[in-house]
Amino acid sequence: QIGFAHTKTISKDKPCKRLVLYYHDILFNGTNVSNATSAAVANQTALGDYKFAMFVVFDDPMTEDHHLLSKPVARAQGFYFYDMKKEYNAWFAYTLVFDSTEYGQGTINIMGADLMGQETRDLSVVGGTGDFFMARGIATFTTDTFQGDAYFRLEMDIKLFECY
Amino acid sequence: QIGFAHTKTISKDKPCKRLVLYYHDILFNGTNVSNATSAAVANQTALGDYKFAMFVVFDDPMTEDHHLLSKPVARAQGFYFYDMKKEYNAWFAYTLVFDSTEYGQGTINIMGADLMGQETRDLSVVGGTGDFFMARGIATFTTDTFQGDAYFRLEMDIKLFECY
Amino acid sequence: QIGFAHTKTISKDKPCKRLVLYYHDILFNGTNVSNATSAAVANQTALGDYKFAMFVVFDDPMTEDHHLLSKPVARAQGFYFYDMKKEYNAWFAYTLVFDSTEYGQGTINIMGADLMGQETRDLSVVGGTGDFFMARGIATFTTDTFQGDAYFRLEMDIKLFECY
Repeated sequence: QIGFAHTKTISKDKPCKRLVLYYHDILFNGTNVSNATSAAVANQTALGDYKFAMFVVFDDPMTEDHHLLSKPVARAQGFYFYDMKKEYNAWFAYTLVFDSTEYGQGTINIMGADLMGQETRDLSVVGGTGDFFMARGIATFTTDTFQGDAYFRLEMDIKLFECY
Repeated sequence: QIGFAHTKTISKDKPCKRLVLYYHDILFNGTNVSNATSAAVANQTALGDYKFAMFVVFDDPMTEDHHLLSKPVARAQGFYFYDMKKEYNAWFAYTLVFDSTEYGQGTINIMGADLMGQETRDLSVVGGTGDFFMARGIATFTTDTFQGDAYFRLEMDIKLFECY
Repeated sequence: QIGFAHTKTISKDKPCKRLVLYYHDILFNGTNVSNATSAAVANQTALGDYKFAMFVVFDDPMTEDHHLLSKPVARAQGFYFYDMKKEYNAWFAYTLVFDSTEYGQGTINIMGADLMGQETRDLSVVGGTGDFFMARGIATFTTDTFQGDAYFRLEMDIKLFECY
């Protein structure tokens, strides 16, 4: 079983594809149905003061620049929850859903810890479909704005190191 | 570090393994303990009319044909939730658990968006164990029957493109 | 596109890296804030007697030996839930977070079924970051102590078969 054409090579310095997009999240507060993009499955517990176990499902717009109202080029669908007693810290699993001529059709699946105490933090791209068939890589988060539940924005720098 | 025997080659057209199975889900409604295969961790929110943030844990039978009562050849253990304001849309993460002579022993791990508005949608096979050691691939969902919470059935067409 | 240096080879018998660590979980019961390492997002349902759909978020210490109070060498951040009607059975997704000179910097992402009825069970390592860049492999769980919600300890034998 020798196949040169698709033999896999990985270089840490050279992603085979890269996308930098902004994620916008507005939590449902009971009245903002038209603006909200996410809703809590469960509220925070009393374990510490940083919303431990607050669990949120989202369908968030992804834009090319910082502006919430820019035309979305993808959706981010999935969930996050807070998981630390002594500071804010979160965990994400989600799918980037693309349906455009510019970015193509298909999905990118991502999961990992969002170590909010660090300026940048890396999650894993664990798979992809369609134009992102079998992708793997790294998604680097940077907090761009954090206004708590009302609104937060993350820069997501998606680097794929396996492309087929 | 050159190893021809296990050099990885991937062809989009030729999965190294393929399984087509049916997933059956019956939500617990408080009284159907004997039939139910799943239960809600949390009920839907008021964000839209499509059960946004309803979160369900399941241990569902997987069969080779459409019949709910056919002998299961695997279990699907994991969760799904609904995540869209304006139509039904879901997200899944789960494990297919095999324990048979026909299908072998081991598990296949899957996650991704279930874009219910599309006739077929692709999720990622992100790993495997036992006879599915280190598997990767695509799981294609097709809705076979959707009776809401009472019962729904999905065809899952599992195509592995990495087999070891 | 031919690159011998990073051509991927996988041998089931020879992980390229192996870590054996212990996971300690103490569920928040409303009063043990200082000791608790996890909290329930939702309590069990009435579907069977084995806590079906009880869903727990954790930030747990990982140690090199069995002792809860040994110096942690990593954190495990993620969630588990119970998902079977007739016996205890669980499902995990989480990140091992490393920040030390001995183990390095970075994360390992894991998901899969914790088939508690089996003496050992395998989950998938689906990705990694930092010193575990793009890792894949198998995480083998063995229950070391199970005192229900009060405390349980798992041995996690992490074997990576892809290292870069």
